[in-house]
Amino acid sequence: MKKPLILVTNDDGITAPGIRTLIDIVSEFGEVIVVAPDSPQSGMGHAITVNKTLHLDRISPENAPVTEYTTSGTPADCVKMAKYEILNRKIDLCVSGINHGSNSAINVIYSGTMSAVIEAGIEGIPSIGFSLCDFSWGADFSAVKPYIRKIVTEVLENGLPKGVVLNVNIPKLPAEEIKGIKICRQANAKWIERFDKRQSPFGKDYYWLAGEFVCEDKGEDTDEWALNQGYVSIVPVQFDLTAHHYIQELNNWEFHEKD
Amino acid sequence: MKKPLILVTNDDGITAPGIRTLIDIVSEFGEVIVVAPDSPQSGMGHAITVNKTLHLDRISPENAPVTEYTTSGTPADCVKMAKYEILNRKIDLCVSGINHGSNSAINVIYSGTMSAVIEAGIEGIPSIGFSLCDFSWGADFSAVKPYIRKIVTEVLENGLPKGVVLNVNIPKLPAEEIKGIKICRQANAKWIERFDKRQSPFGKDYYWLAGEFVCEDKGEDTDEWALNQGYVSIVPVQFDLTAHHYIQELNNWEFHEKD
Repeated sequence: MKKPLILVTNDDGITAPGIRTLIDIVSEFGEVIVVAPDSPQSGMGHAITVNKTLHLDRISPENAPVTEYTTSGTPADCVKMAKYEILNRKIDLCVSGINHGSNSAINVIYSGTMSAVIEAGIEGIPSIGFSLCDFSWGADFSAVKPYIRKIVTEVLENGLPKGVVLNVNIPKLPAEEIKGIKICRQANAKWIERFDKRQSPFGKDYYWLAGEFVCEDKGEDTDEWALNQGYVSIVPVQFDLTAHHYIQELNNWEFHEKD
Repeated sequence: MKKPLILVTNDDGITAPGIRTLIDIVSEFGEVIVVAPDSPQSGMGHAITVNKTLHLDRISPENAPVTEYTTSGTPADCVKMAKYEILNRKIDLCVSGINHGSNSAINVIYSGTMSAVIEAGIEGIPSIGFSLCDFSWGADFSAVKPYIRKIVTEVLENGLPKGVVLNVNIPKLPAEEIKGIKICRQANAKWIERFDKRQSPFGKDYYWLAGEFVCEDKGEDTDEWALNQGYVSIVPVQFDLTAHHYIQELNNWEFHEKD
Protein backbone atom coordinates (compact mmCIF):
# COMPACT_ATOMS: atom_id res chain seq x y z
CA MET A 1 0.00 0.00 0.00
CA LYS A 2 1.17 3.50 -0.80
CA LYS A 3 2.32 5.45 2.25
CA PRO A 4 -0.10 8.23 3.16
CA LEU A 5 0.94 11.85 2.62
CA ILE A 6 0.63 13.72 5.91
CA LEU A 7 0.68 17.52 6.27
CA VAL A 8 1.83 18.87 9.63
CA THR A 9 1.26 22.44 10.77
CA ASN A 10 0.65 24.40 13.97
CA ASP A 11 0.20 27.91 15.36
CA ASP A 12 3.08 28.09 17.82
CA GLY A 13 5.52 28.24 14.89
CA ILE A 14 8.10 25.93 13.39
CA THR A 15 10.43 26.08 16.41
CA ALA A 16 7.87 24.85 18.97
CA PRO A 17 8.64 21.59 20.80
CA GLY A 18 5.01 20.56 20.23
CA ILE A 19 5.31 20.38 16.44
CA ARG A 20 8.60 18.47 16.76
CA THR A 21 6.85 15.80 18.83
CA LEU A 22 4.00 15.63 16.32
CA ILE A 23 6.39 15.30 13.35
CA ASP A 24 8.18 12.42 15.13
CA ILE A 25 4.95 10.56 15.76
CA VAL A 26 3.32 10.91 12.35
CA SER A 27 6.59 10.07 10.56
CA GLU A 28 5.88 6.48 11.65
CA PHE A 29 2.77 6.50 9.46
CA GLY A 30 3.75 7.96 6.11
CA GLU A 31 5.45 10.66 4.08
CA VAL A 32 5.46 13.88 6.08
CA ILE A 33 5.56 17.46 4.85
CA VAL A 34 5.67 20.35 7.30
CA VAL A 35 4.36 23.82 6.46
CA ALA A 36 4.28 25.97 9.58
CA PRO A 37 4.33 29.65 10.51
CA ASP A 38 7.79 31.16 10.95
CA SER A 39 6.66 32.76 14.24
CA PRO A 40 3.97 32.14 16.88
CA GLN A 41 0.39 32.87 15.79
CA SER A 42 -1.62 32.22 18.96
CA GLY A 43 -5.07 33.76 19.11
CA MET A 44 -5.15 34.23 15.34
CA GLY A 45 -8.51 32.48 14.97
CA HIS A 46 -9.31 31.66 11.37
CA ALA A 47 -7.27 34.54 9.93
CA ILE A 48 -5.99 34.48 6.37
CA THR A 49 -3.56 36.92 4.78
CA VAL A 50 -5.38 38.95 2.15
CA ASN A 51 -3.93 42.45 2.40
CA LYS A 52 -0.26 41.51 2.75
CA THR A 53 2.20 39.42 0.78
CA LEU A 54 3.36 36.01 1.97
CA HIS A 55 6.80 34.44 2.09
CA LEU A 56 7.42 30.73 1.74
CA ASP A 57 10.82 29.22 2.52
CA ARG A 58 12.01 25.64 2.34
CA ILE A 59 14.12 25.22 5.46
CA SER A 60 15.04 21.51 5.31
CA PRO A 61 18.10 20.40 3.31
CA GLU A 62 17.66 18.43 0.05
CA ASN A 63 17.98 14.95 1.56
CA ALA A 64 16.28 15.49 4.90
CA PRO A 65 13.81 12.72 5.85
CA VAL A 66 11.05 15.31 6.34
CA THR A 67 10.51 18.30 4.03
CA GLU A 68 9.87 21.47 6.00
CA TYR A 69 8.67 24.88 4.92
CA THR A 70 7.92 28.04 6.85
CA THR A 71 5.54 30.79 5.80
CA SER A 72 5.08 34.35 7.03
CA GLY A 73 1.35 33.63 7.20
CA THR A 74 -1.22 32.22 9.56
CA PRO A 75 -1.96 28.52 10.15
CA ALA A 76 -4.82 28.69 7.63
CA ASP A 77 -2.42 30.27 5.11
CA CYS A 78 -0.02 27.36 5.70
CA VAL A 79 -2.69 24.83 4.71
CA LYS A 80 -3.67 26.84 1.63
CA MET A 81 0.00 27.16 0.55
CA ALA A 82 0.64 23.45 1.15
CA LYS A 83 -2.36 22.46 -0.91
CA TYR A 84 -2.22 24.98 -3.75
CA GLU A 85 1.44 26.00 -4.05
CA ILE A 86 3.69 23.22 -2.70
CA LEU A 87 1.90 19.90 -3.20
CA ASN A 88 0.01 18.97 -6.26
CA ARG A 89 -1.04 15.64 -4.82
CA LYS A 90 -3.83 14.38 -2.61
CA ILE A 91 -3.12 15.01 1.06
CA ASP A 92 -4.30 11.99 3.08
CA LEU A 93 -4.18 13.56 6.53
CA CYS A 94 -3.54 16.94 8.11
CA VAL A 95 -2.44 17.20 11.74
CA SER A 96 -1.96 20.46 13.61
CA GLY A 97 -0.19 21.05 16.92
CA ILE A 98 0.71 19.79 19.37
CA ASN A 99 -0.49 23.10 20.71
CA HIS A 100 1.14 24.40 23.88
CA GLY A 101 -2.13 25.05 25.72
CA SER A 102 -5.75 23.95 25.72
CA ASN A 103 -8.11 24.40 22.78
CA SER A 104 -11.12 22.94 24.56
CA ALA A 105 -14.59 24.51 24.88
CA ILE A 106 -14.98 27.98 23.32
CA ASN A 107 -11.21 28.20 22.76
CA VAL A 108 -11.76 26.33 19.48
CA ILE A 109 -13.06 29.66 18.12
CA TYR A 110 -9.85 31.58 18.90
CA SER A 111 -7.50 28.75 18.04
CA GLY A 112 -4.94 29.00 15.26
CA THR A 113 -4.27 25.28 15.68
CA MET A 114 -7.91 24.47 14.93
CA SER A 115 -8.16 27.05 12.14
CA ALA A 116 -5.57 25.03 10.19
CA VAL A 117 -7.56 21.87 10.90
CA ILE A 118 -10.81 23.47 9.73
CA GLU A 119 -9.10 24.88 6.62
CA ALA A 120 -7.89 21.37 5.75
CA GLY A 121 -11.41 20.08 6.42
CA ILE A 122 -12.84 22.61 3.96
CA GLU A 123 -10.38 21.15 1.43
CA GLY A 124 -11.78 17.69 2.11
CA ILE A 125 -8.67 16.47 3.95
CA PRO A 126 -9.23 14.30 7.07
CA SER A 127 -7.81 16.53 9.75
CA ILE A 128 -7.01 16.51 13.48
CA GLY A 129 -5.86 19.18 15.94
CA PHE A 130 -3.88 18.14 19.01
CA SER A 131 -3.43 20.33 22.08
CA LEU A 132 -1.77 19.66 25.42
CA CYS A 133 -3.29 21.54 28.36
CA ASP A 134 0.07 23.01 29.34
CA PHE A 135 1.02 26.49 28.13
CA SER A 136 4.73 26.18 28.95
CA TRP A 137 7.30 25.93 26.18
CA GLY A 138 9.01 23.19 28.20
CA ALA A 139 5.83 21.10 28.47
CA ASP A 140 6.32 17.34 28.79
CA PHE A 141 4.92 15.67 25.66
CA SER A 142 5.89 12.11 26.60
CA ALA A 143 2.43 11.02 27.77
CA VAL A 144 0.68 12.11 24.58
CA LYS A 145 2.35 9.73 22.13
CA PRO A 146 0.23 6.57 22.48
CA TYR A 147 -2.98 8.64 22.22
CA ILE A 148 -1.88 10.50 19.11
CA ARG A 149 -0.76 7.20 17.53
CA LYS A 150 -4.11 5.64 18.29
CA ILE A 151 -6.18 8.54 16.98
CA VAL A 152 -4.07 8.90 13.81
CA THR A 153 -4.37 5.14 13.20
CA GLU A 154 -8.15 5.26 13.53
CA VAL A 155 -8.55 8.30 11.27
CA LEU A 156 -6.28 6.79 8.58
CA GLU A 157 -8.35 3.59 8.79
CA ASN A 158 -11.86 5.04 9.00
CA GLY A 159 -11.49 8.43 7.36
CA LEU A 160 -13.75 11.30 8.44
CA PRO A 161 -17.00 12.36 6.79
CA LYS A 162 -17.17 15.54 4.74
CA GLY A 163 -17.49 18.58 6.96
CA VAL A 164 -16.16 16.98 10.17
CA VAL A 165 -12.70 17.38 11.72
CA LEU A 166 -11.40 16.42 15.18
CA ASN A 167 -10.35 18.60 18.11
CA VAL A 168 -8.22 16.56 20.52
CA ASN A 169 -7.16 17.91 23.91
CA ILE A 170 -4.84 16.07 26.26
CA PRO A 171 -4.75 16.72 30.00
CA LYS A 172 -1.52 17.81 31.71
CA LEU A 173 -0.97 14.55 33.57
CA PRO A 174 1.70 11.85 33.81
CA ALA A 175 1.03 8.92 31.45
CA GLU A 176 -0.16 6.60 34.22
CA GLU A 177 -2.83 9.05 35.37
CA ILE A 178 -4.49 9.50 31.95
CA LYS A 179 -7.60 7.33 32.01
CA GLY A 180 -8.25 6.98 28.26
CA ILE A 181 -10.20 8.74 25.52
CA LYS A 182 -13.69 10.29 25.66
CA ILE A 183 -15.76 11.52 22.73
CA CYS A 184 -17.27 14.82 23.84
CA ARG A 185 -19.24 17.88 22.93
CA GLN A 186 -17.76 21.40 23.16
CA ALA A 187 -18.39 22.73 26.68
CA ASN A 188 -20.39 25.92 26.99
CA ALA A 189 -17.84 28.29 28.51
CA LYS A 190 -16.41 31.77 28.05
CA TRP A 191 -13.69 34.16 29.12
CA ILE A 192 -14.43 36.87 31.65
CA GLU A 193 -11.99 39.46 30.41
CA ARG A 194 -10.08 42.11 32.21
CA PHE A 195 -7.90 44.69 30.50
CA ASP A 196 -4.70 45.46 32.31
CA LYS A 197 -4.26 49.20 31.70
CA ARG A 198 -0.72 50.57 31.76
CA GLN A 199 1.14 53.68 30.68
CA SER A 200 3.97 53.94 28.18
CA PRO A 201 7.09 55.94 29.18
CA PHE A 202 5.51 58.80 27.19
CA GLY A 203 2.28 58.70 29.17
CA LYS A 204 0.05 56.99 26.61
CA ASP A 205 -2.38 54.38 27.94
CA TYR A 206 -2.16 50.89 26.57
CA TYR A 207 -3.81 47.59 27.45
CA TRP A 208 -3.04 43.92 27.85
CA LEU A 209 -5.86 41.44 27.39
CA ALA A 210 -6.16 39.39 30.58
CA GLY A 211 -8.98 37.18 31.67
CA GLU A 212 -10.31 34.16 33.39
CA PHE A 213 -11.78 31.09 31.74
CA VAL A 214 -15.19 30.25 33.20
CA CYS A 215 -17.06 27.02 32.48
CA GLU A 216 -20.58 26.98 33.84
CA ASP A 217 -21.53 23.91 31.81
CA LYS A 218 -22.12 21.10 34.30
CA GLY A 219 -22.64 18.41 31.65
CA GLU A 220 -20.68 15.18 31.98
CA ASP A 221 -20.38 14.84 28.20
CA THR A 222 -18.20 17.91 27.58
CA ASP A 223 -14.51 18.23 26.75
CA GLU A 224 -13.97 20.26 29.95
CA TRP A 225 -15.49 17.51 32.07
CA ALA A 226 -13.43 14.80 30.37
CA LEU A 227 -10.17 16.73 30.75
CA ASN A 228 -10.88 17.46 34.42
CA GLN A 229 -11.53 13.75 34.97
CA GLY A 230 -8.19 12.83 33.39
CA TYR A 231 -9.37 11.79 29.93
CA VAL A 232 -8.14 12.80 26.50
CA SER A 233 -11.12 14.61 24.88
CA ILE A 234 -12.11 14.31 21.23
CA VAL A 235 -14.74 16.73 19.93
CA PRO A 236 -15.94 16.26 16.35
CA VAL A 237 -16.04 19.79 14.92
CA GLN A 238 -18.03 21.11 11.97
CA PHE A 239 -17.71 24.31 9.96
CA ASP A 240 -21.31 24.56 8.86
CA LEU A 241 -22.14 27.19 11.47
CA THR A 242 -25.86 27.25 10.64
CA ALA A 243 -28.04 27.04 13.75
CA HIS A 244 -30.40 24.69 11.88
CA HIS A 245 -32.71 24.37 14.89
CA TYR A 246 -33.51 28.08 14.75
CA ILE A 247 -34.45 28.38 11.07
CA GLN A 248 -38.08 27.45 11.65
CA GLU A 249 -38.48 30.00 14.43
CA LEU A 250 -36.99 32.78 12.30
CA ASN A 251 -39.47 31.93 9.56
CA ASN A 252 -42.23 32.91 11.99
CA TRP A 253 -40.85 36.44 12.34
CA GLU A 254 -42.51 39.22 10.41
CA PHE A 255 -40.04 39.99 7.68
CA HIS A 256 -42.16 42.05 5.34
CA GLU A 257 -40.71 42.76 1.93
CA LYS A 258 -40.37 46.49 2.38
CA ASP A 259 -40.97 49.15 5.00
CA MET B 1 -39.25 52.53 27.95
CA LYS B 2 -35.49 52.93 28.30
CA LYS B 3 -33.68 53.32 24.99
CA PRO B 4 -31.62 50.27 24.12
CA LEU B 5 -27.81 50.49 24.23
CA ILE B 6 -26.42 49.47 20.85
CA LEU B 7 -22.78 48.62 20.16
CA VAL B 8 -21.57 49.13 16.58
CA THR B 9 -18.37 47.64 15.20
CA ASN B 10 -16.94 46.33 11.93
CA ASP B 11 -13.79 44.97 10.31
CA ASP B 12 -13.26 47.51 7.54
CA GLY B 13 -12.25 50.09 10.15
CA ILE B 14 -13.76 53.26 11.56
CA THR B 15 -13.43 55.21 8.31
CA ALA B 16 -15.47 52.82 6.15
CA PRO B 17 -18.66 54.14 4.54
CA GLY B 18 -20.40 50.91 5.58
CA ILE B 19 -20.09 51.56 9.33
CA ARG B 20 -21.25 55.18 8.81
CA THR B 21 -24.45 53.91 7.19
CA LEU B 22 -24.98 51.39 9.99
CA ILE B 23 -24.45 54.05 12.69
CA ASP B 24 -27.02 56.29 11.00
CA ILE B 25 -29.61 53.52 10.87
CA VAL B 26 -29.27 52.18 14.42
CA SER B 27 -29.17 55.69 15.90
CA GLU B 28 -32.93 55.73 15.21
CA PHE B 29 -33.35 52.90 17.73
CA GLY B 30 -31.34 53.81 20.79
CA GLU B 31 -28.14 55.00 22.38
CA VAL B 32 -25.23 54.10 20.13
CA ILE B 33 -21.61 53.47 21.03
CA VAL B 34 -19.06 52.71 18.34
CA VAL B 35 -15.88 50.72 19.01
CA ALA B 36 -14.15 49.87 15.75
CA PRO B 37 -10.68 49.00 14.50
CA ASP B 38 -8.49 51.96 13.56
CA SER B 39 -7.55 50.20 10.28
CA PRO B 40 -9.03 47.52 8.01
CA GLN B 41 -9.01 43.97 9.42
CA SER B 42 -10.42 41.89 6.56
CA GLY B 43 -9.72 38.18 6.66
CA MET B 44 -8.86 38.33 10.36
CA GLY B 45 -11.25 35.51 11.23
CA HIS B 46 -11.82 35.22 14.97
CA ALA B 47 -8.44 36.68 15.92
CA ILE B 48 -7.82 38.25 19.32
CA THR B 49 -4.74 40.16 20.42
CA VAL B 50 -2.88 38.16 23.06
CA ASN B 51 0.82 38.75 22.34
CA LYS B 52 0.68 42.48 21.67
CA THR B 53 -0.60 45.52 23.52
CA LEU B 54 -3.78 47.34 22.51
CA HIS B 55 -4.56 51.00 22.16
CA LEU B 56 -7.98 52.50 22.75
CA ASP B 57 -8.79 56.07 21.73
CA ARG B 58 -11.96 58.06 22.10
CA ILE B 59 -12.27 59.92 18.81
CA SER B 60 -15.64 61.69 19.17
CA PRO B 61 -15.84 65.08 20.90
CA GLU B 62 -17.50 65.38 24.35
CA ASN B 63 -20.95 66.39 23.12
CA ALA B 64 -21.18 64.31 19.96
CA PRO B 65 -24.51 62.46 19.55
CA VAL B 66 -22.65 59.17 19.15
CA THR B 67 -19.62 58.16 21.22
CA GLU B 68 -16.89 56.63 19.08
CA TYR B 69 -13.73 54.77 19.98
CA THR B 70 -11.04 53.15 17.88
CA THR B 71 -8.78 50.31 18.95
CA SER B 72 -5.58 48.93 17.46
CA GLY B 73 -7.11 45.48 17.76
CA THR B 74 -9.30 43.09 15.83
CA PRO B 75 -13.12 43.18 15.64
CA ALA B 76 -13.31 40.59 18.45
CA ASP B 77 -10.97 42.76 20.54
CA CYS B 78 -13.34 45.72 19.94
CA VAL B 79 -16.26 43.80 21.44
CA LYS B 80 -14.19 42.66 24.42
CA MET B 81 -12.97 46.22 25.07
CA ALA B 82 -16.48 47.66 24.71
CA LYS B 83 -17.88 45.14 27.18
CA TYR B 84 -15.09 44.95 29.75
CA GLU B 85 -13.26 48.28 29.55
CA ILE B 86 -15.61 50.98 28.21
CA LEU B 87 -19.16 50.05 29.19
CA ASN B 88 -20.15 48.71 32.50
CA ARG B 89 -23.77 48.32 31.48
CA LYS B 90 -25.86 45.73 29.71
CA ILE B 91 -25.48 45.95 25.94
CA ASP B 92 -28.88 45.33 24.33
CA LEU B 93 -27.71 44.79 20.77
CA CYS B 94 -24.47 44.50 18.84
CA VAL B 95 -24.37 45.18 15.10
CA SER B 96 -21.31 44.74 12.91
CA GLY B 97 -20.68 46.03 9.40
CA ILE B 98 -21.99 46.99 6.99
CA ASN B 99 -19.19 44.93 5.48
CA HIS B 100 -17.93 45.95 2.06
CA GLY B 101 -18.21 42.48 0.53
CA SER B 102 -20.07 39.21 1.03
CA ASN B 103 -19.83 37.08 4.16
CA SER B 104 -22.10 34.35 2.85
CA ALA B 105 -21.39 30.60 2.76
CA ILE B 106 -17.94 29.55 4.07
CA ASN B 107 -16.85 33.21 4.18
CA VAL B 108 -18.41 33.38 7.65
CA ILE B 109 -15.32 31.46 8.86
CA TYR B 110 -12.84 34.08 7.57
CA SER B 111 -14.97 37.08 8.42
CA GLY B 112 -13.86 39.74 10.87
CA THR B 113 -17.37 41.21 10.71
CA MET B 114 -18.88 37.95 11.91
CA SER B 115 -16.11 37.34 14.48
CA ALA B 116 -17.29 40.48 16.29
CA VAL B 117 -20.87 39.22 16.09
CA ILE B 118 -19.91 35.80 17.46
CA GLU B 119 -17.83 37.40 20.23
CA ALA B 120 -20.88 39.45 21.27
CA GLY B 121 -22.98 36.28 21.09
CA ILE B 122 -20.58 34.52 23.47
CA GLU B 123 -21.17 37.46 25.83
CA GLY B 124 -24.91 36.85 25.62
CA ILE B 125 -25.61 39.98 23.56
CA PRO B 126 -28.17 39.68 20.70
CA SER B 127 -25.97 40.30 17.71
CA ILE B 128 -26.22 40.77 13.92
CA GLY B 129 -23.64 41.05 11.15
CA PHE B 130 -24.55 42.96 7.97
CA SER B 131 -22.68 42.61 4.69
CA LEU B 132 -23.33 44.09 1.27
CA CYS B 133 -22.15 41.94 -1.64
CA ASP B 134 -20.09 44.76 -3.11
CA PHE B 135 -16.39 44.99 -2.31
CA SER B 136 -15.97 48.57 -3.51
CA TRP B 137 -15.34 51.39 -1.03
CA GLY B 138 -17.85 53.51 -2.96
CA ALA B 139 -20.60 50.86 -2.70
CA ASP B 140 -24.16 52.19 -2.76
CA PHE B 141 -25.74 51.48 0.63
CA SER B 142 -29.09 53.16 -0.08
CA ALA B 143 -31.02 49.94 -0.78
CA VAL B 144 -30.00 48.27 2.47
CA LYS B 145 -31.68 50.65 4.91
CA PRO B 146 -35.26 49.28 5.08
CA TYR B 147 -33.92 45.73 5.52
CA ILE B 148 -31.54 46.64 8.30
CA ARG B 149 -34.32 48.62 10.03
CA LYS B 150 -36.66 45.65 9.78
CA ILE B 151 -34.15 43.11 11.07
CA VAL B 152 -32.99 45.34 13.95
CA THR B 153 -36.64 45.96 14.91
CA GLU B 154 -37.39 42.25 14.98
CA VAL B 155 -34.29 41.35 17.00
CA LEU B 156 -34.96 44.13 19.54
CA GLU B 157 -38.55 42.83 19.85
CA ASN B 158 -37.94 39.07 19.89
CA GLY B 159 -34.38 38.79 21.17
CA LEU B 160 -32.22 35.87 20.12
CA PRO B 161 -31.73 32.62 22.00
CA LYS B 162 -28.46 31.90 23.78
CA GLY B 163 -25.82 30.69 21.34
CA VAL B 164 -27.44 32.08 18.17
CA VAL B 165 -26.45 35.21 16.20
CA LEU B 166 -27.47 36.38 12.73
CA ASN B 167 -25.44 36.65 9.53
CA VAL B 168 -27.21 38.97 7.09
CA ASN B 169 -26.04 39.40 3.50
CA ILE B 170 -27.56 41.87 1.08
CA PRO B 171 -27.33 41.49 -2.71
CA LYS B 172 -25.74 44.22 -4.83
CA LEU B 173 -28.98 45.36 -6.45
CA PRO B 174 -31.04 48.53 -6.75
CA ALA B 175 -33.77 48.75 -4.08
CA GLU B 176 -36.59 47.91 -6.50
CA GLU B 177 -34.91 44.65 -7.55
CA ILE B 178 -34.47 43.24 -4.04
CA LYS B 179 -37.24 40.71 -3.55
CA GLY B 180 -37.35 40.49 0.24
CA ILE B 181 -35.77 38.42 3.03
CA LYS B 182 -35.06 34.67 3.13
CA ILE B 183 -34.01 32.64 6.17
CA CYS B 184 -31.26 30.32 4.93
CA ARG B 185 -28.62 27.78 5.79
CA GLN B 186 -24.92 28.38 5.09
CA ALA B 187 -24.16 27.16 1.55
CA ASN B 188 -21.53 24.47 1.20
CA ALA B 189 -18.85 26.27 -0.80
CA LYS B 190 -15.10 26.89 -0.79
CA TRP B 191 -12.30 28.89 -2.36
CA ILE B 192 -10.10 27.32 -5.02
CA GLU B 193 -6.92 29.19 -4.28
CA ARG B 194 -4.13 30.29 -6.50
CA PHE B 195 -0.97 31.94 -5.25
CA ASP B 196 0.29 34.72 -7.47
CA LYS B 197 4.09 34.34 -7.23
CA ARG B 198 6.18 37.46 -7.79
CA GLN B 199 9.73 38.63 -7.18
CA SER B 200 10.87 41.53 -5.04
CA PRO B 201 13.39 44.00 -6.53
CA PHE B 202 16.04 41.98 -4.64
CA GLY B 203 15.00 38.70 -6.26
CA LYS B 204 13.12 37.15 -3.32
CA ASP B 205 9.93 35.28 -4.15
CA TYR B 206 6.72 36.42 -2.52
CA TYR B 207 3.08 35.51 -2.92
CA TRP B 208 -0.36 37.05 -3.08
CA LEU B 209 -3.34 34.94 -2.12
CA ALA B 210 -5.73 34.83 -5.05
CA GLY B 211 -8.61 32.54 -5.65
CA GLU B 212 -12.02 31.78 -6.96
CA PHE B 213 -15.15 31.20 -4.90
CA VAL B 214 -16.86 27.97 -5.91
CA CYS B 215 -20.33 26.98 -4.70
CA GLU B 216 -21.29 23.45 -5.67
CA ASP B 217 -24.25 23.41 -3.29
CA LYS B 218 -27.39 23.28 -5.45
CA GLY B 219 -29.81 23.62 -2.52
CA GLU B 220 -32.55 26.24 -2.77
CA ASP B 221 -32.40 26.91 0.96
CA THR B 222 -28.88 28.38 1.06
CA ASP B 223 -27.65 31.95 1.43
CA GLU B 224 -25.92 31.74 -1.96
CA TRP B 225 -29.14 30.71 -3.65
CA ALA B 226 -31.14 33.48 -1.96
CA LEU B 227 -28.58 36.17 -2.86
CA ASN B 228 -28.44 34.99 -6.46
CA GLN B 229 -32.23 35.17 -6.63
CA GLY B 230 -32.22 38.75 -5.35
CA TYR B 231 -33.11 38.15 -1.69
CA VAL B 232 -31.49 39.40 1.49
CA SER B 233 -30.22 36.25 3.25
CA ILE B 234 -30.33 35.66 7.01
CA VAL B 235 -28.42 32.66 8.37
CA PRO B 236 -28.75 31.93 12.09
CA VAL B 237 -25.19 31.13 13.20
CA GLN B 238 -24.05 29.13 16.21
CA PHE B 239 -20.65 28.88 17.90
CA ASP B 240 -21.07 25.44 19.37
CA LEU B 241 -18.99 23.81 16.64
CA THR B 242 -19.68 20.26 17.87
CA ALA B 243 -20.69 17.93 15.04
CA HIS B 244 -23.29 16.34 17.33
CA HIS B 245 -24.44 13.92 14.63
CA TYR B 246 -21.00 12.29 14.55
CA ILE B 247 -20.52 11.62 18.28
CA GLN B 248 -22.29 8.27 18.18
CA GLU B 249 -20.20 7.06 15.23
CA LEU B 250 -16.95 8.05 16.95
CA ASN B 251 -18.02 6.08 20.00
CA ASN B 252 -17.94 2.97 17.81
CA TRP B 253 -14.27 3.48 17.00
CA GLU B 254 -11.72 1.37 18.85
CA PHE B 255 -10.15 3.83 21.22
CA HIS B 256 -8.35 1.51 23.61
CA GLU B 257 -7.05 3.07 26.79
CA LYS B 258 -3.38 2.53 26.06
CA ASP B 259 -1.20 1.07 23.33
